[in-house]
Formats: sequence, C-alpha cells, structure tokens
Amino acid sequence: MKRNWNAYANEQVVALPLSEGSLSGKTFAVKDVFDIAGHTPGAGNPDWLRTHEPSDRHAAVVDKLLGSGAKLMGTTITDEIMYSINGENAHYGTPVNPKAIGRIPGGSSSGSAVAVSAGLADFAIGTDTGGSVRVPSAYCGIYGIRPTHGAIDVSGLIPLAPSFDTVGWMARDAQTLLDVGRVLLGSQACKDGAFPRMAFADDLWSLTDEHSFAAASRYFPVLRELADQQEAVVVAPNGLREWMNAFRTIQGLEIWREHQEWITREKPSFGPGIAERFAWASTLKLEESGAAYILREEIRMRMEELLGEDTVLVAPTVPAIAPPLNMTGSEVERRRVQTLEMSCVAGLAGLPQVTVPIAGEQGCPIGISFIAGRNQDMRLLEWVADRVSAQIFLLSE
Amino acid sequence: MKRNWNAYANEQVVALPLSEGSLSGKTFAVKDVFDIAGHTPGAGNPDWLRTHEPSDRHAAVVDKLLGSGAKLMGTTITDEIMYSINGENAHYGTPVNPKAIGRIPGGSSSGSAVAVSAGLADFAIGTDTGGSVRVPSAYCGIYGIRPTHGAIDVSGLIPLAPSFDTVGWMARDAQTLLDVGRVLLGSQACKDGAFPRMAFADDLWSLTDEHSFAAASRYFPVLRELADQQEAVVVAPNGLREWMNAFRTIQGLEIWREHQEWITREKPSFGPGIAERFAWASTLKLEESGAAYILREEIRMRMEELLGEDTVLVAPTVPAIAPPLNMTGSEVERRRVQTLEMSCVAGLAGLPQVTVPIAGEQGCPIGISFIAGRNQDMRLLEWVADRVSAQIFLLSE
Repeated sequence: MKRNWNAYANEQVVALPLSEGSLSGKTFAVKDVFDIAGHTPGAGNPDWLRTHEPSDRHAAVVDKLLGSGAKLMGTTITDEIMYSINGENAHYGTPVNPKAIGRIPGGSSSGSAVAVSAGLADFAIGTDTGGSVRVPSAYCGIYGIRPTHGAIDVSGLIPLAPSFDTVGWMARDAQTLLDVGRVLLGSQACKDGAFPRMAFADDLWSLTDEHSFAAASRYFPVLRELADQQEAVVVAPNGLREWMNAFRTIQGLEIWREHQEWITREKPSFGPGIAERFAWASTLKLEESGAAYILREEIRMRMEELLGEDTVLVAPTVPAIAPPLNMTGSEVERRRVQTLEMSCVAGLAGLPQVTVPIAGEQGCPIGISFIAGRNQDMRLLEWVADRVSAQIFLLSE
Repeated sequence: MKRNWNAYANEQVVALPLSEGSLSGKTFAVKDVFDIAGHTPGAGNPDWLRTHEPSDRHAAVVDKLLGSGAKLMGTTITDEIMYSINGENAHYGTPVNPKAIGRIPGGSSSGSAVAVSAGLADFAIGTDTGGSVRVPSAYCGIYGIRPTHGAIDVSGLIPLAPSFDTVGWMARDAQTLLDVGRVLLGSQACKDGAFPRMAFADDLWSLTDEHSFAAASRYFPVLRELADQQEAVVVAPNGLREWMNAFRTIQGLEIWREHQEWITREKPSFGPGIAERFAWASTLKLEESGAAYILREEIRMRMEELLGEDTVLVAPTVPAIAPPLNMTGSEVERRRVQTLEMSCVAGLAGLPQVTVPIAGEQGCPIGISFIAGRNQDMRLLEWVADRVSAQIFLLSE
C-alpha cells in the first residue's frame, strides 16, 4: 500500500486535465480551501465542512492548471481556517513531515507541502497570508513561492485576511516551480535577467538559531557571486517586533471581519491555539489601529527603497528546523513570533518571496529565502531556477 | 480624411493579433500609460516621455488582448500622470467628445473613451483609480467597467495610487464589454445569474442635478423588474464628503510616494490643475492620516454589508452631463468634488462598477452605474449584457 503521509483531505477529488499544455504529465494537489466543482472545501474544520455547500465551479487557478495539462490528485489538509503556521490539525490529524519525522510540517498549507515533499504530487497549491506556503515549504524541504499580492486571481478561495492573502505553490525542484509560474503568472511584465544587487538581511538572519545560520551561511559566498554588488542591510531599523505586531493586528481585524458571522452563528469547535487566536482577533478595535495601518504604509515605502526593481533580499525562511510535534503553549507562541517576524516582511510589503530548501540541524530542512520587488515574480523564479538552485545543489552534494 | 477627434497619442503604435481568438476582427486602443514593446508610454506629459525609456515588452493585458485576436490601433491621450478626471490636456490638446461637442470628454482615460465613442476602435483600455474609466465613459456615452481591485494584472502599467489602481475598459455595446471581460477575467470564479437584490443609492442620486436624475429615473421601473427585491439605501450614513476626503488623502499619499522622486528630479512642466494637485499631495503627512486608513476599512465593511454577493447597487456615474471645456478654478473643483463623491465608493471598497450610457440634458450622455460585490465582475458584465442593456435600449428608442 502506498504510504499517504496524511497529506490529503480527500483523495477522491481528482480531475483530469482539460487540455494538453505545458504542465502535461504533471500532477498536483490543492489545499482544501479552493473551490473544486462539486466538492465542498473543508478549510480543515469539520464544522466549516458541515455548514457549507459544494462549489459550482473550480477556483480560477485550478481551472488554469487543468487547462495547462496538469492532473489534480486531491485536496490537502490545512490548518483550521488557515489561521496557523504550525500545520497541526486536531480534527484530521497532522500531515507527516517526510523530511523531519516527529516534527511539525508547518502550515497552514501543511498537506500541500507534505504531498510534494513525499512525492505524492509534482506540485501543490497553497495560500500564503503570513507564511502559510513559505513556512511548510521550508520545514518539509521543498521550493515554495508567495507571489506579489494581487498578482494571482484569488477568486474561488476562502479568504483569511484579503489584504495579505495570496495563492502560492510548492515543488521539489526550481524548474517545476518556474513552470507553474509560467502558467499562473505567464503574462507578467517584469524585467528580465539577474538581479544586479543582492542585500543580506542582517536583522532577519539574527533571528535564526546558531546552527541554522551556520548551515545557511555556507551558501553565502556562492550566492554573492550571482550579483554584481552585495551589501548587508537592516530591514527594520526600529525592530521587526513592531512590524510583526502591525501584521498581526491588521490580519486579525480582517480575519474577524471575514469570519465573525460564521463563528458567531455556528460556534464551531476549534483545536488548540485556533480558538484562542480567533478570540483574540475578536477583541481588536479598528478605531485604535491607525498606527498599524500607517506603519504598513511606511513598511511598503521602506521595502521599495531597499529593493526597487533590481535588488534581491536574502533572508531566512524560518528561524530553525521544524519544532517537535505537540509543543505546548509558550514554546509554540515563541516560535510563532520568531517566524512571523521573518515572514511578515513580504506579507506587509506585498512582495514575492521564494524559499529554497537546504539541510539544517540533524539533516532536517530549513529554507533560504529570496525577496524581490513588486511584480518581479517571474524574474525571481527564473533566476532561482537558472542560477541559484544549481549553486545550492552543488554545494549540498 | 478620417476625422481623428484627437483621441490618439500615437497612431503609429499598432500591433497585429498574435493569434486567432475570441476577439478576432476587433480593434482596440490603449491609454498611453501601458507598456507596448519598443514604445515609450508618455503618460500625457512631454517631460515624462523625454525622461523615460522604451518598454521592452507589452503590458500583461496588451499581451492577452493581442493573443485573443484583437488588433491594436494606437495609444490614446491621457490626463497628465492620470491625475485628473477632466480629460483636458494642455500639452497634447483635449480629445474631442464626439457626443457632446464643446464639452470635456472626462478623464483621465480621455482618448480611450473618445476613440471608442467616435468608432475609431471597437474597445479601449484605460485605468481607473478614482473614476478614470467610469467618468469619461459616461461623458462620452459608452459602456465602461472598473473591475474589482486586484482582479486584473497591472504589470506594465505606470502606477498612480496602487491600492486603488485598476485596469478598466470601454466599448460601445455591452456585449463587447463582456467579450473583453471574458479574455481579461475569463477564469474568475464568481456566482452565476442575476442579482436577486437591487439597492438604489439614495445619497448618491441626491448628488445628481435635477435633469440627470429625471433622465435616469425613467429607467428605474424597468431596472426594478430585473431583481426579486428592491430597496433604497443610504450608502454613507455619515456623509460621502468624509469618504471622498479619505479617498483623496490615501490617493494623494500614494501618488506622491510613487512620483515624488521623478517630480523632484525632473521638475516637469504640468498643465493647469495638475501641478497644484501634485503640490497638494506633497503636503500630506502619512503619520496624520490614520483616520483615513481606518475609515477605508470601515467603508469596505459597510459595502460588504450592503452588497454581499447578491445585491447590485444602482447609482449615478456622474452628477450631470459633461461640463463645458475650459471651466475655471472653483467650478472645476466643485464638479471634481461632486464626481469623486460618487466615484470614490467603488474605489475605496475595491468593487466592480459598470457604467451604462443614457441620454441626459440636451442629448448629452450621462451614465447609470451598477456596483456589485468583490469578484462579481463577470456576473455583472453578463447581467448587464443579457438583461440591462436591452431594457435601456428599448426605453431609449
């Protein structure tokens, strides 16, 4: 029997390609928060599934992928209503991290990352609001992208926090990540070619543990050779904690706005952490949150100033290898905060970020991330496929 | 000699279809703010043209349209850096409104509206930040759409205020507007069918002049028959002036952020109104604008509450027929404020709005607008083409 790693929410939700195309022969899995015609997306929560109707059509990205020759293999387990970056699901079980047994897969696109990492699908679709594609990609040792906010149609997707929500995807190799990008972002008018400037995000790297920094910094010399100019930068001179708090506040306000009605009406049963997080979101007051919105605008200006079109930022995807399963209260929260301090940067600024897998402590995966300017997604994917992945692969042998 | 109505910025910028498709046989014009390979977009200002380089590829939407069989006929005159809704251009001349001679065409997508209205192209592409497709469509007597913010790829477009910027389009008939929508938004997963509820925006209608209200309200009875339930609503219980001010503040902050560097460096020469508007934008202080960002969030919630997925809002596109050319200071500003009070609603909430042409005072055109929920663009276009336009056409005969 084929091992299934508990990646799939529903392996019966299969769909054949709608035509031949550039993805013919490839298989994919879709996080269970996208519309698939005739199927009810479950969003990782049985009460959500019970209180919603089947979709009458596919989400926009699913249509595009089927129309490009790819075959849908099933829907994948997600953290409940996408509101976590851990990947532990109390209702359906936690997808098993194939590259770090006994450790969390990361979330919320947990099953998508596991399906790809375990070879159950060639690529998978997830969503990334605060790290939900990037974090599980890093923990499960695969490539992943969070695209420019707004660059990919989110219609047919259950919203979490719309001003941050993006459709992202994952693959075991950079070429497949790029091939999917050509389908989903194919007509994007970005610049061609390599990034002349490379900036290393000192303050983000200082959040990694010693072993992860050592593992990642082995690659810095070969990465430096990929750009004409290199520099070290401090992304957030006044501290990333303030950035993360602005992210959490605006995200929480939007999440409560999106889901308040359903939660109040249905009183759904949530697993550990999720209920508390929704309860916290319900306490936020829009009228007291002006500073968070102002800071987000300042952050967008700061990142535009740092990156423009021609600089790529090198940063860690996660602070360390995936933590063990079933961590408790304060440990979970501490890791969540550290991770969000990294992942909130691209989220707040709406920028594309690609994570590339490398080996960390005990051979468990971590990720090196590359963040580029707005709408430079295709250029970033091509650069990673053509230049970065080969360098990293060579050094990893 | 074919009359050209001063619609085109450059009639040499032609491009043949890249393949056969659903738009084969159709011609289109593009506002001179989109990338066309080998051409420098001029943004309605000679200093912009002089200080920028030719584009090395087409903007995403241009690629899609050429790939669907449409033929590009040229680039169209725009208000300078899109920062006006009047359509008067001191450098290149004001495109001539074919349906209201002696009156402004509206802007900033002035030349696009005129090209379509005069029959120089079957449809045209513009941009709409605060009304720049909707207003000239109404004044020139054509159909126009501002889509859901984020639904269409803006790559290859000169930005004005990114959190409001959209790519919109115009056509002489609702079917062509829909056909272009299928190409640009084809995979959007929205609901099917008519809108069960119709809301008439009392406060927006109260901003129209007496004649325009009389002309529009002739159509209310046939419109009412298109929905199961009808109601009258007040969109902004605390007043639209406050909404418009939030719009102008956030827009101004973003405009200055986008264009400050160029303006400071090149000291471009701007025509009347434009220079003052940029100077005003430069005085805005982000740190004092928290209330505007909070109000925008409240407005998004308000519109979601009013419309959900199943209600269509009926509102005026413009307060009255196009004003005469060469209005001066306070008259221009008064009309600008009235118009922005209407057009800011869809802009602030990021919602799709379709304007349908009807005859107003002296036979000059005005528009009736239909605003729907987020990502209901295709449903709205289909509903207008299948249901609304025939009713309005019959009554107009």
